[in-house]
Amino acid sequence: MTVGPMNTPEPIPSARWARIRLFAMDVDGILTDGRVFIGSDGTESKAFSVIDGLGLARVREAGTEVAWISGRPSGATAHRAGELKINRLLQGRNDKAAALREILEETGIAPEDTCYMGDDLIDVPALQLAGIGISVPEACDAVRRHADWITARSGGFGAVREICDLILESRDS
Amino acid sequence: MTVGPMNTPEPIPSARWARIRLFAMDVDGILTDGRVFIGSDGTESKAFSVIDGLGLARVREAGTEVAWISGRPSGATAHRAGELKINRLLQGRNDKAAALREILEETGIAPEDTCYMGDDLIDVPALQLAGIGISVPEACDAVRRHADWITARSGGFGAVREICDLILESRDS
Amino acid sequence: MTVGPMNTPEPIPSARWARIRLFAMDVDGILTDGRVFIGSDGTESKAFSVIDGLGLARVREAGTEVAWISGRPSGATAHRAGELKINRLLQGRNDKAAALREILEETGIAPEDTCYMGDDLIDVPALQLAGIGISVPEACDAVRRHADWITARSGGFGAVREICDLILESRDS
Amino acid sequence: MTVGPMNTPEPIPSARWARIRLFAMDVDGILTDGRVFIGSDGTESKAFSVIDGLGLARVREAGTEVAWISGRPSGATAHRAGELKINRLLQGRNDKAAALREILEETGIAPEDTCYMGDDLIDVPALQLAGIGISVPEACDAVRRHADWITARSGGFGAVREICDLILESRDS
Repeated sequence: MTVGPMNTPEPIPSARWARIRLFAMDVDGILTDGRVFIGSDGTESKAFSVIDGLGLARVREAGTEVAWISGRPSGATAHRAGELKINRLLQGRNDKAAALREILEETGIAPEDTCYMGDDLIDVPALQLAGIGISVPEACDAVRRHADWITARSGGFGAVREICDLILESRDS
Repeated sequence: MTVGPMNTPEPIPSARWARIRLFAMDVDGILTDGRVFIGSDGTESKAFSVIDGLGLARVREAGTEVAWISGRPSGATAHRAGELKINRLLQGRNDKAAALREILEETGIAPEDTCYMGDDLIDVPALQLAGIGISVPEACDAVRRHADWITARSGGFGAVREICDLILESRDS
Repeated sequence: MTVGPMNTPEPIPSARWARIRLFAMDVDGILTDGRVFIGSDGTESKAFSVIDGLGLARVREAGTEVAWISGRPSGATAHRAGELKINRLLQGRNDKAAALREILEETGIAPEDTCYMGDDLIDVPALQLAGIGISVPEACDAVRRHADWITARSGGFGAVREICDLILESRDS
Repeated sequence: MTVGPMNTPEPIPSARWARIRLFAMDVDGILTDGRVFIGSDGTESKAFSVIDGLGLARVREAGTEVAWISGRPSGATAHRAGELKINRLLQGRNDKAAALREILEETGIAPEDTCYMGDDLIDVPALQLAGIGISVPEACDAVRRHADWITARSGGFGAVREICDLILESRDS
């Protein structure tokens, strides 16, 4: 994983964002900066962005499903998902694309109407499956080259909010 | 919410700062960097700046009311407010302008004599209501364009202290 | 407190460092990045740098007294001081210069043989009292202009270690 | 410890990475950003990177031993090592080279087939002993000049993952 120049793909047309009915995403590195704070007493915590939370609430109210798919099971993630009422939370899933496919089958949503956001190699198949694949500036080249768009903000610092706003703006226009 | 070029408004004249009798502000993203640390045991914490705390204490001693208006109820915010003796703490209020208006009515302070500081879309009506509206470099364009001034420091890293110092310096001169 | 251009004072000659028998410092903003993590359960924590800790241990072994003078009483600071065996810990002291003078009287060390490190306005009298006054890049202009030297690293990220190394190198040469 | 220009050594040939049978590393500053979060209740925590964890798991599955050698004993480090199933965890060892030598004797691995990663002066002898010595951009000049390579990413933010990927890529080719 080397840090290379950012690819600069074309902006995604608003009409494609307007189709999105499911916004699924990895957790560590996307909703957080990829760090886990581990305590001497075994507790762990993670830093989530308040502006991401507000954005996800609006996206859901606007009728788009939200799902979190995480490789690493974490009580901190479960608590944050509960607070934001994310009812599609899949943890312990390194097979991101298979997990995403399960959600598509359950909901009857087509892959083309799905946006997936991820930052590591295990996210690549899901980035390819989804109609719109998004990554973050910190992701390695091998991941970013499979993304349709790279957010300006970093994971855990509003990257998810950027995508929420693009989805919401496509509804307004 | 896209990250655009910072608007560079004119510096606010000292005479306008000298009128400020109420300094009201959003919490997440202004007094913090907008991140909530969530633990596997359900506890949450937030990072507040010590220099902001010293600045707010001085502003209050100099006779300016201080108020915090937060959309997201948080025990961490309540503890920090208690430590700094912020007695006007309104939590669970996404209707920032309405909350600000309540404080103005209670205190009899005019909107023109008020400074409000916020970073998200729900803060915009309060930024417009207050005599001086302030935002931070991280805020999105849609918020920053409604601010009279953008701090040099980031939220949670001394942005509030900058405004405290401008208020205090206007008293000295 | 505005963020201005860094002053670039002349490097302090090794002979002056060689005289230092007391290295005293502020805590928040110097040994940390000035942030306090406050939990919903009322606990608080602060982030200290491991390389600072190693540096302070070496300075003390080399015969230089170490003292921490903090305005804000904190259990986190007390625990870190205990771990590093800092026996001169003065908390709840906003009168930094008076506190420093007490240590000088107790130890019989002359102000000229003292280095003080601080980042806020309340630190200025102590910066002026000490033979060598040090600040950090984040400090405001009003503080930095009273410092003999500004560290390259930020408070909480090795700023204290830089000064430890300058003291230790002066002993070797 | 002064912050100097980064040395820019030659890239290490893939054939040298392919020989690595032991990847040993310091903890604070390498697997973390060198900060310890200390609470008012005496608990401590550290921030570990999830992408580093995934990388180390893959390196071990590919048959390379992984060892952590830390100067400062920490429950947080022990918990993270347990989670990642790092069975070679040596804590309280400031004599890093001696600790590394013990592992080499136990495993029968030659120094030339070892990669060591460290960021402080006490790591230098181990950096010199190992076939490949790695440091991070934050390390001081006195350490970096003894390293064969400096990662692009910072300690605690994927520096270890970079090395994991170099080891793994050398196996594929």
